[in-house]
Amino acid sequence: MQEKATEEQIDAVIEVMEEAGVSVHRTTGAMQTILAGVGPTANIDLTKFEVLPGVLNVLRISSPYKLAGRAFRPGGSIIEFANGVKVGGEQVAVMAGPCSIENREQMFQTAARVKAIGASFLRGGAFKPRSSPYAFQGMGIPGLQMMYEAARAHGLLTVSEVMEISQIEEMLPYVDLFQVGARNMQNFNLLRELGQARKPVLLKRGISATLEELLLSAEYIMAGGNYDVILCERGIRTYETATRNTMDISAIPVIHKLSHLPIAADPSHGTGRRDMVAPMARAAVAAGADAILVEVHPNADKAASDAAQTLYLEQFDELMSQLRLIATAVGRTM
Amino acid sequence: MQEKATEEQIDAVIEVMEEAGVSVHRTTGAMQTILAGVGPTANIDLTKFEVLPGVLNVLRISSPYKLAGRAFRPGGSIIEFANGVKVGGEQVAVMAGPCSIENREQMFQTAARVKAIGASFLRGGAFKPRSSPYAFQGMGIPGLQMMYEAARAHGLLTVSEVMEISQIEEMLPYVDLFQVGARNMQNFNLLRELGQARKPVLLKRGISATLEELLLSAEYIMAGGNYDVILCERGIRTYETATRNTMDISAIPVIHKLSHLPIAADPSHGTGRRDMVAPMARAAVAAGADAILVEVHPNADKAASDAAQTLYLEQFDELMSQLRLIATAVGRTM
Amino acid sequence: MQEKATEEQIDAVIEVMEEAGVSVHRTTGAMQTILAGVGPTANIDLTKFEVLPGVLNVLRISSPYKLAGRAFRPGGSIIEFANGVKVGGEQVAVMAGPCSIENREQMFQTAARVKAIGASFLRGGAFKPRSSPYAFQGMGIPGLQMMYEAARAHGLLTVSEVMEISQIEEMLPYVDLFQVGARNMQNFNLLRELGQARKPVLLKRGISATLEELLLSAEYIMAGGNYDVILCERGIRTYETATRNTMDISAIPVIHKLSHLPIAADPSHGTGRRDMVAPMARAAVAAGADAILVEVHPNADKAASDAAQTLYLEQFDELMSQLRLIATAVGRTM
Amino acid sequence: MQEKATEEQIDAVIEVMEEAGVSVHRTTGAMQTILAGVGPTANIDLTKFEVLPGVLNVLRISSPYKLAGRAFRPGGSIIEFANGVKVGGEQVAVMAGPCSIENREQMFQTAARVKAIGASFLRGGAFKPRSSPYAFQGMGIPGLQMMYEAARAHGLLTVSEVMEISQIEEMLPYVDLFQVGARNMQNFNLLRELGQARKPVLLKRGISATLEELLLSAEYIMAGGNYDVILCERGIRTYETATRNTMDISAIPVIHKLSHLPIAADPSHGTGRRDMVAPMARAAVAAGADAILVEVHPNADKAASDAAQTLYLEQFDELMSQLRLIATAVGRTM
Repeated sequence: MQEKATEEQIDAVIEVMEEAGVSVHRTTGAMQTILAGVGPTANIDLTKFEVLPGVLNVLRISSPYKLAGRAFRPGGSIIEFANGVKVGGEQVAVMAGPCSIENREQMFQTAARVKAIGASFLRGGAFKPRSSPYAFQGMGIPGLQMMYEAARAHGLLTVSEVMEISQIEEMLPYVDLFQVGARNMQNFNLLRELGQARKPVLLKRGISATLEELLLSAEYIMAGGNYDVILCERGIRTYETATRNTMDISAIPVIHKLSHLPIAADPSHGTGRRDMVAPMARAAVAAGADAILVEVHPNADKAASDAAQTLYLEQFDELMSQLRLIATAVGRTM
Repeated sequence: MQEKATEEQIDAVIEVMEEAGVSVHRTTGAMQTILAGVGPTANIDLTKFEVLPGVLNVLRISSPYKLAGRAFRPGGSIIEFANGVKVGGEQVAVMAGPCSIENREQMFQTAARVKAIGASFLRGGAFKPRSSPYAFQGMGIPGLQMMYEAARAHGLLTVSEVMEISQIEEMLPYVDLFQVGARNMQNFNLLRELGQARKPVLLKRGISATLEELLLSAEYIMAGGNYDVILCERGIRTYETATRNTMDISAIPVIHKLSHLPIAADPSHGTGRRDMVAPMARAAVAAGADAILVEVHPNADKAASDAAQTLYLEQFDELMSQLRLIATAVGRTM
Repeated sequence: MQEKATEEQIDAVIEVMEEAGVSVHRTTGAMQTILAGVGPTANIDLTKFEVLPGVLNVLRISSPYKLAGRAFRPGGSIIEFANGVKVGGEQVAVMAGPCSIENREQMFQTAARVKAIGASFLRGGAFKPRSSPYAFQGMGIPGLQMMYEAARAHGLLTVSEVMEISQIEEMLPYVDLFQVGARNMQNFNLLRELGQARKPVLLKRGISATLEELLLSAEYIMAGGNYDVILCERGIRTYETATRNTMDISAIPVIHKLSHLPIAADPSHGTGRRDMVAPMARAAVAAGADAILVEVHPNADKAASDAAQTLYLEQFDELMSQLRLIATAVGRTM
Repeated sequence: MQEKATEEQIDAVIEVMEEAGVSVHRTTGAMQTILAGVGPTANIDLTKFEVLPGVLNVLRISSPYKLAGRAFRPGGSIIEFANGVKVGGEQVAVMAGPCSIENREQMFQTAARVKAIGASFLRGGAFKPRSSPYAFQGMGIPGLQMMYEAARAHGLLTVSEVMEISQIEEMLPYVDLFQVGARNMQNFNLLRELGQARKPVLLKRGISATLEELLLSAEYIMAGGNYDVILCERGIRTYETATRNTMDISAIPVIHKLSHLPIAADPSHGTGRRDMVAPMARAAVAAGADAILVEVHPNADKAASDAAQTLYLEQFDELMSQLRLIATAVGRTM
């Protein structure tokens, strides 16, 4: 409460707090009175109190997410896949592949190489939402099927982006991990449906989402009973224009502190430039990332989308050698 | 090109530019060579050139949007509604109503009052996507119907948010203006469908969208043949924490310079606090806004959502008196 | 405290709090314990507590500034100058002039015109810190003397930027209001010296300063006994690139709520473009600004610095007519 | 130029460009005319052109800095110190010590330990500019002398922050590397004087500075003849509140691309939390940093300032073991 708040104002605030379902503890100092509300506060909108007369400041002490919070599973979560691959354990997982699925040959060629180099997931986009209405829009389900066959032929898992509720069902046979893109991080209807799906979800951080918002979106999925969520840092929007986004490497240790969920890093989208992918992938593993997503293409210069941020396969190979050494430094394998 | 770029590198870049379909003009200075590409560049991804050897910098000179650009209609667009109300003309339009539609009485009471005070649109949300999975989610189509009846009973138009493609059809009988929320500004599938709808669209700026991205999203709708788009500034995310968002008032004159489309302002979401709504509404009209959205509620403290930013009806009345004077100062009516 | 915090951890935190000089009030809920520290907390560094074992979150409830806070003078401050001009009262003050002082004729010509149009302060820079080491650096004290004579010849006050402690003494005879630029907002040595000066200070907000930091800088000056501080919004750095800075108009009502100090607005630096100055000046007055700074020049195109954001005198004249109407709408004069 | 620009407008722009001292090359496309200015453009203010009639957009192609640019020394710069220590070469340099110099014992104890653990520089602040006017302000020159003696007793170099021109001379005998703090990155008078000093400078990035601005500040120092500049990333201000600043790890590879100057990283100020220092130090070395600054204190909990971000000496020891492994992964030693 403000220093000059009257007893009437204090009583009025206490009443509104009690109506909202919390029990109120009052601390009266020499200068100021503090009212602490204890109880189920997760769905209370705090600004409701902020505009009451005499109120100085309203602060939330407990986090608004529960299932996604570290306290829920202090030891951390490990997501296990059918073929025994785990994300969140000792081994840092690698997900590699082209931005867009283009054709059968591309996917089989990529699958063979990324498997040999050390990836455990094949990635590829089937639905490409482009910011310009005049660009390539993706191959859809037939593309996913190609990716799935190429992956299975080489013992890989698949990960691909789901953009709409209607796609969940049709993608289900072909993906082992549903990716939710940055633009859909707060598409709550989609998140709720994925909470019903019985497949893990890779949830990318929105381009201007706080880590609290990212965890609240994970909570949406988990509230439906699907606890297999992997978070993913992929760059945030800042004032800096020298890079497309600013990859927030510190999100990795912060998420490990706030949540039990594994956290991946996507240096390809995080930087947008091929020559920045390797340094940022190394930084992510050094900071403790549980998985890395990398865009690679057998013919990177001719990739149908994101060509500039796509690694040549030889670059990916060299990067993996560096990452293995770094993983050792942080007590992991790769 | 970089100062040390070789002739081979320059030739290689020229080749890639020509492949991309532009004609190349070369300027050779004492220090540097500049390559200008002229032609249909809107769908070319510039980073493709940035990573070529010898390239220093790649800049887009013409804007990536055409239909939304000022040059398309230098005199500016006026959106006209069935009852003769216009947005973008001399009169500044006012859209008022509660955040959420709650019940019949609330909507009729609100409609009567906001009409008397000077609004021409009744606003109200039927689908409420909340960032917490545990909160009120809206009344849906029956709510919209109530709003429509209340509006028509008082000669008002209706505006409400559409969140998914499947809602367009069922909302069509009840809304005069489809609102696209900030979180859906880059939901390109939704935008494309709205381009087919024959009803005007109010397109809100995403919380971290640049004005160029806002115009590109408008372009998506317009590319489908629906030119009746009203843009809306509603606050952007910055480092400042004293306000929920930073309302970017300068977006108003900038949009008028870059585009022919009308621009509205939403000071309720832009600030999140009742006591900031009036100053920012005044600022928006003073800066040249073509329309104002204001959250009002006959019983603002008990509003089911956004209570803290909702004006009491008497506050709205007083605000309108101030706005009328300010409109005069900028050669408008209200 | 975290949900799983032990009694030992809680006791350890209480001990550190007591060492820091606050009395501790404990609230024990079903899930969590809250420790409230009451006492002189302004100079306590909160992160000290954040890293203690078992601590979930540390929040400051009372503001870290006292003299600058609204509670110190709930009625608001009015800064009065020798010739009776007031800033913070009913009349909105206008400060106009060129970015740089260039010569005697320029200043006398400008003074005559801005006085006739309605300004009460003549502004002009004598020391020009440029971000490029290769640009014009200002006329220094002889320039200030010219400005002072021109101002007094037309009954105007003067305002000019002080950049170093050593300049305070030599500027003193020629300025009525010391301006502290955005880059020096946290030059605490300079602020402390200005706290000893017996002349008002116009303190500009740093390009990435929060409003709390701005008020803490004002506190620095006030702590020395100089209470005549006028704050100034001049644009903050955001991700948007369509404008040089994003002018945070909402800072005006927020400062009025948090502090008793007057708040000015500088739309010239806030936008960097001549065609944006008028809309943003109007927005600032509509939002409640106590003063407006505008760059004008008798020959704007040839101004030695900031030419692009400098108004022609006719534009300034027209702007003042609009501002007078808007001032009326908010119960002010101009 | 805009699509509808007239020949008169184009000619007027060409004239202004020629007046500014550049030669103009004109490209006339089907839709648009492009004017390229070639010549000494570093000190031309571009907004001057932006506001001319008919101009669509003005872009700078060559960088506004020359001495700091990669092209000036494509092989990269190595800064060599008296005792043979190098920054920018194969070995990653380590600078460690307390935030503030507190007393003789603290400095000798720290020097002995950090030397044993592997540092080559002892750091410590003598002048502490605090954002609150009520906090500890540093020991000044006597403190520096203590640090210098402690460093030399253990074969270490010293680095300390200079805050004002007047301090340069008196600090000179005691520091091997002048540190310019984030708040002074654009204190151009200070930078110019340091350009005259014959000691290396560690230039920290301002909290909201772009990398271009950082390089332009380095240019200020270099323009005076002092080419021994080490840049330093220490966190930027973003919308995220979970960390004090967002450490921009991508600045490291970007600086290596744009400039020949070495780049250091300061994870202590970059994160503000002890538990985040190690992950971010590892990330910085993995991304290619040339030096690391770490705050350590023999009694970290009782440090006079920045206690929360100061490592215990055992933590520093463990961190160095990890960093040595990571350095190997990127072909460096440590």
